[in-house]
This record gives sequence, C-alpha cells and structure tokens, in this order.
Amino acid sequence: MDKILAAIDSALPSSLERLFSFLRIPSISAQPAHAADCRRAAEWSRDTLTEMGFAARLSETKGHPGVIAQNFSAGPEAPHVLFYGHYDVQPADPLELWHSDPFDPQLVEGPRGKRIVARGAVDDKGQVISFMEAVRAHLAVNGRLPVRLTILLEGEEENGSPSLAELLTNERDNLRADFVLVADTNMWNFETPAITASLRGLAAIDVRLHGPSRDLHSGLFGGIALNPIFALTHIIGQMKDDQGRITIPGFYDGITPVSREQEAAWAGLGFDAGAFLGDVGLHHPAGEQDQIPLVQLWARPTAELNGIYGGYQGDGSKTVIPAHATAKLTFRLVAGQNPVKILDAFERFVIERLPPDARAEFTRGGAAPGYGLAPDAPFLRAAQAALLAEFGKDAALVGSGASIPVVEAFKTILGLDTLLAGFGLDDDCIHSPNEKFELACFHRGTRAHARLLSAFARA
Amino acid sequence: MDKILAAIDSALPSSLERLFSFLRIPSISAQPAHAADCRRAAEWSRDTLTEMGFAARLSETKGHPGVIAQNFSAGPEAPHVLFYGHYDVQPADPLELWHSDPFDPQLVEGPRGKRIVARGAVDDKGQVISFMEAVRAHLAVNGRLPVRLTILLEGEEENGSPSLAELLTNERDNLRADFVLVADTNMWNFETPAITASLRGLAAIDVRLHGPSRDLHSGLFGGIALNPIFALTHIIGQMKDDQGRITIPGFYDGITPVSREQEAAWAGLGFDAGAFLGDVGLHHPAGEQDQIPLVQLWARPTAELNGIYGGYQGDGSKTVIPAHATAKLTFRLVAGQNPVKILDAFERFVIERLPPDARAEFTRGGAAPGYGLAPDAPFLRAAQAALLAEFGKDAALVGSGASIPVVEAFKTILGLDTLLAGFGLDDDCIHSPNEKFELACFHRGTRAHARLLSAFARA
Repeated sequence: MDKILAAIDSALPSSLERLFSFLRIPSISAQPAHAADCRRAAEWSRDTLTEMGFAARLSETKGHPGVIAQNFSAGPEAPHVLFYGHYDVQPADPLELWHSDPFDPQLVEGPRGKRIVARGAVDDKGQVISFMEAVRAHLAVNGRLPVRLTILLEGEEENGSPSLAELLTNERDNLRADFVLVADTNMWNFETPAITASLRGLAAIDVRLHGPSRDLHSGLFGGIALNPIFALTHIIGQMKDDQGRITIPGFYDGITPVSREQEAAWAGLGFDAGAFLGDVGLHHPAGEQDQIPLVQLWARPTAELNGIYGGYQGDGSKTVIPAHATAKLTFRLVAGQNPVKILDAFERFVIERLPPDARAEFTRGGAAPGYGLAPDAPFLRAAQAALLAEFGKDAALVGSGASIPVVEAFKTILGLDTLLAGFGLDDDCIHSPNEKFELACFHRGTRAHARLLSAFARA
Repeated sequence: MDKILAAIDSALPSSLERLFSFLRIPSISAQPAHAADCRRAAEWSRDTLTEMGFAARLSETKGHPGVIAQNFSAGPEAPHVLFYGHYDVQPADPLELWHSDPFDPQLVEGPRGKRIVARGAVDDKGQVISFMEAVRAHLAVNGRLPVRLTILLEGEEENGSPSLAELLTNERDNLRADFVLVADTNMWNFETPAITASLRGLAAIDVRLHGPSRDLHSGLFGGIALNPIFALTHIIGQMKDDQGRITIPGFYDGITPVSREQEAAWAGLGFDAGAFLGDVGLHHPAGEQDQIPLVQLWARPTAELNGIYGGYQGDGSKTVIPAHATAKLTFRLVAGQNPVKILDAFERFVIERLPPDARAEFTRGGAAPGYGLAPDAPFLRAAQAALLAEFGKDAALVGSGASIPVVEAFKTILGLDTLLAGFGLDDDCIHSPNEKFELACFHRGTRAHARLLSAFARA
C-alpha cells in the first residue's frame, strides 16, 4: 500500500492535468446545445480508461450515452465493485458571477491551500478522476487491481437521469457486482471523512399558468383580465404555512418520523446550524419549525421553487399582463414517499386553486425516491477501516439532503446496495458560480480510494 | 375644408411613406441599448417639422430629448393649441411571436381592409403622423394654420416619463397654450370616435427579495435555507383577496365611488365584456366582483404583476435555491389616490410580511395620479362637432384604463387642461406582438384632425 500511496503522491501533477482536460469539456446535460459536449466527455472517459487497460465503451441511450469500463485483472474470486460517477455538469449561469471561465479550470490559492476552480471541479468530474487516479496507481505498482472493477459513468445525472433506467436495464448483465461505490458526496469537514447512509430523493415538475391568449396592455385590460403571474404566486405562495410545513394534502404520507436515538446521534455530530447558514448570509433555519436543523436537512422532504418567470424582465417597466407565467419546482423526498404520488398531489393542489380562465400546464422531470443504507452492509466496515487509516479519524455516518437517483435505481433494477463515500466539502459551491475542489481533498480522496480498493478485497 | 380633405386623400401614399420611415427607427425608450435610436427618432421628427415650416428643435433632458416645434402662421389672435405625442415605443419582445420584423412596417390585408403592422404603428407614431399630415394639408392648401400650434413630442412615455417634469419645467415659457390636444387614445369602435374624459394614473415599482448570499444547492441546503422565490410568491400572492379586492392597507383611500348616474351612462354604451375578454381568450371579469366591467376598467385601481423572475429559467431542471427573486409591478390609479402613498403602502405591505433573513430592495419607476376632464371645457364642444362631421356619429365620452402621465403633468406644471381624442382601436395589440393601425383609422384620423384644427379656431 505504501508504494501505491507514494505513486499517487508523485503523480499528482499529471493527475491534475488529466482532470483539467476533463473539466474543459462543457458537458451540461440539461441544455440541448451542449449535447455534443456531453458525448465528447463520454468519449474522453472511454479513451482514458481504455488507455489505462480497461475494456471500455459507450452505451447508447435515448439521451446522452453512458460509459462502461471493466478490469477483471483481480481474477474471478475477487469481490466485484461497481463504481458509479457522472461526467455531466450543471449549467454554469449566472456567468457574470464567476471569477474565471467555468470551463477553463484554474488552480487558485485559498485558505486551505490550493483549490481547483471550474464547473464540475468536484461535482462530479473531480471525484471521478480522484477514483480513476487511485486505480491507475494500483495498476502502475502491481499490474493488477485488488478487486474486479466495473466503472459506470452516467451523462444525465444533473438533469434528473431520464435515461438511467434504460441504461441499467440494457446493461443489467454487464453490471453484476457485489455492491456499488459512489463518489458524489461530501466529507463531514476538512479533517473528517464521511459515509452517507441516507439520501433524499427528487421529483421535478414545471407548472405554466396560462391566462389571456396574448400579452395584454395592463391599462386597457387591467382590472378585468386575469393576470397569470398573480394567479401563479397566489397558488404557489400557499404551498407552505407559517411553520414551514408544506400544505399539499398527503405530502407527508408514508414517512417514518426520525427516532429519538437517531436525532440524538445527529445532535452529537456538533453541527453548527448558525455557522452553516452564516456562510451563505442566513441565520434562521427556514424549514419545519418543530424539527432540528439536521433533521430538516437529511430526513424531511422539501418543496423548492428553483426558478420562476413570466412577463417583462428587462430594464424599466413594460406595462403588460402576460399570457403565461412559469414556476420550476423540485421536491426533495425521504424514504416512504412515492415521487409519482407527490407530483400527482402537487398538480391537484394547483388545479383545485385555479381561478376562472386560468389553465395549468405541467411538465414532469426526473423522479427518484429517498434511500437508506442497511447498517450491517458487509462492505461498510471495510470502508470505515480504510478511511480511518487515511484520515486518522473515524468516518461520520451521516445523511444527505441531496439526491443521487442512481442509488435507488441500483437497488430497484440491479438489486445492489450502495456505499456513498466522497471527498467534497459543503463550501464547494456545487451548482453555483465558482465551484471548487480543495486540492488537498482531491489528493487525499485519491489516496483513500486506493485504500478502499484494497480493503474491499479483504472484506 | 373640402380642399383640405381632398389634399389629405390624395396624399395618403406619401403620408404612409413618411410614417414607415418613422416606424423603422427602433426607439425603445426603456432599453439603454436603444438610446441612440431614440435620439434618431427625435431628430427625424425635428427635421420633418422643420421641412414643413415649423421652428423645430430638440429639448435636452437627463434622458431622451423632447422635440418642440412651433408654427404661429395663424396670427397672434388665434387660439393656441399644444399638441402632445411621443416618439418612443415599447420593447418588441417576445420577438418570436411577431409575424414580421417589428421595425420593418408592413401593409397587410385584414378584415377591415389594409392595416399597418409594426411596433409603434398606432402607439404613438401612427397617431403622431396622422396629426402631422393634417397639419401638412392645411399648410399645403392655405399656406397657414387656423390655430397657433406648438407640437411637443416626448421620448420616454413608454418608460414612465422620468424626465417629463424636467422637460415641461425647462420649457414652461415655450409651452404656453389654451389647452392641450393629445392623440394617444382609442375610438369607441371602428365606426364611433371617442373623447376620453378620464384616465387612470400609474405608479411603478420593482421589488427584489434577497435571501442567501449566493445561489445554493437545493439538496444540500433545502429545508433549512430561505427560498426567496417562495417568500416573494407568498407575500405577493396575498395582495388580492378572493373577491378581486386589493388587500394593501389604505390602497382605496381617497377614491370617490362611481355615481349611479355615471355607472348607468357607461352601462348604456353597450360594452360587451364577454366579447372584449373573448377576443383575448378570457371569459370572466377578474377585478372586484362587486363592480361592473367598465367600472373595473375605467374607474377602479389595479395592482398588476408585469413581470417576475428568479432562479433558473432554462431547459430541464437546475436544483438551486437562488439568492434573489424579483417582481415588477405597476399600479393603475384613479383620481383621489396619491401615487407616492400607494408605493409607500406597498413597501410596508411587503416589509411587514418578510420572513426572517429576507431583505426587500425596492426600485421605484414613474408615478402619475389619475385625471378627470372638466365637462364644461370650452374646446370640448368644438371637438364633438368636428368628430360628428367626419364620422357622422356622436363621439362617445369615455374613460380610459391606461395612463398618460403627461396629462397630469400639463395640469400641474403648465396649468393646462387636456383633450384626448385618438383613433386607435382596442384590438390594435399595443404593447404586444403584431401591433397594428387600421389604414382606415389612420386616414380618417388625419381627416378628423384637419377638422379639429379648424373647429378649435372657431371655438
């Protein structure tokens, strides 16, 4: 292991070069204009893995292709790990808030040493390359890997994974493994690694409220014509009560309340809600007022407005009653909630509140339920030992408020459990301008992945 | 008069050419990128009036310049008319809904004969040229005008007239007159002219709700971080009750309710609310449910959301909690309401409802109170006789829901009353895609203006 870790340390500059090449590809999966870039990122991954000694290929879907690569140099008796990551990234706008081009990665000095700044620096290209560089070190030192390894990279994670089920179903026979390792989560803090044991799911929906058949002059029609922006705000604005509780009927059905023991364990993590919120200019936990902050974040569902638009948005005023207005929503879901039923309930909530002449048009996006890892999973102890060896501290067993739809899909379609161990930090600005990955996290993440591969072989 | 009318009839093709030249200038006053175009439209007006025999010049302001032109060929004893119009236009977006380039005017066949299609076709370039062509005919036939005439063209009417008070104050001595004639209103219908006796005022304000200091990942922060889009919809959505009544405290203070007699007169106009709304795909008058539709339109104030935006607006989903969200509002006001007090009351309404951590930033736009014309104004009878002569029907004495801030400014700064007689139609799509002016309205409007000028001389 020391030889492998030394190989990782000395290869760091060339590891970064490879990461930067990957980051320069603007593989924004949500925007059709970037479809060719997504394919380019998939091909870059395939070619890099081929060059490392994998049997690698694209797997086509209705959307962006997946990448599948296998290296069975460990022999037929070794445990089989399925590694999952994604090569696509979030849109980079608002561009004017970036200090450098989001697709021209920079190494910038920060309070914890150098950091990598780019869209996808950590989510998820940085985490994927961190794992691939650990694999590269194993192969360089030993000529073989300690486990059978299948790597699956998805290209639509940031757009709700619309083709993931198709991909997993098509490739079911090629994705047999003992468990899945996902690197798309955060450490507890800069010193402490974390294993994520629960994830919130996600259900996305857009609602467009239609009013008049064309934009109207608000003087000639104002006072008699329905204003769809007002109708939209009137309905959506009723979605939460003054205690932060979501008012959509049936929204909380099926949820098991967090146990006293679980709540106490999380309270013991020393999470500082004031500091967490203070970092982003806030002070008051805005969720359900009868829940502690970590429960609000990890174990309770949300209804979020991710975007809203309608009418005139330019300089000055345009006295118009617009023909329509649109809200873009996502719900974060916890185990027990059915995403389809949640979207059904939301549509009913809107339709029952429509004023005369208003018509609602719904567009559903990806939907994935929440997930909880079994505490006795066999690979969990091995992972804890490996992380302790690298960081000198026990990994925190945490929940995550964010969704990784693939985790549920692995369970449903492949019958596999998933271990979530990643090396991002909460202040990495993922999905925001100036996304970064601490160089130290990238480096220690690579070393930890190398140890995890060996630990899984012994498990 | 017959000679003058004949001159107008035979000059129609060249009148249209001049109008089209004017329409080709994209003088959008609200958008800084079009500042040079606004100046070009002002210069075009000045040069055209100079060529017609006016002493014409630009009058500079902090914003777009005004145009002032005078022709006193009628001699010192003749009545003095101050004509007002505006050379600026509304933004043309959404561009994709136009059937032709908004700044490449077209003559298109319609159900009432040919129509002029362009941004500004009727509001207000078409109405301005209609008046100028009547003046041109008087000068061509008689070599002089029947009244002393000052023409004032403004360049910021569609942006709330921020420099109008400055312009009128600077030019007070040059704008002395007996009354003001404004051509920026509509006929009652295609057969019936109208004189507008009341106007709603306008007060504009944008409110931006700030939440977190940067855009946040809705998985990592959702459930604990304030969402400013939700906060905005929650507050704005409370602004009207289920009976269409605006809930801002003090909003209706100072308004005199419409008299039974006035309501009966308007009911007698045969306004068909069903058809009026049906033309734009609506069926139910959406204002105060205890008021008849014409009162909702002409004599009751409104609170309209002209635009809203925040967060992600692109394809697919972006799971973000944005740093801020913005609503753009205008209030239509009636006589008795104080625009500044209305905006003060709105700000209080928002501030009192802000959740913890939210901050509201307000940007006020133009503000003008409502207006009512004195029924015994001396020039009113003359105008009624001239319109009857041209159209063979009495002019309807109506109200208008739309604002012309200059009317109140003429009263306040110059001490002048205003006669509003224009030749647009309700279906002209002003402020909307495919704005048009019926060629017949343009032509009869020009003839009517020629008659009005002579009638004012005899009044």
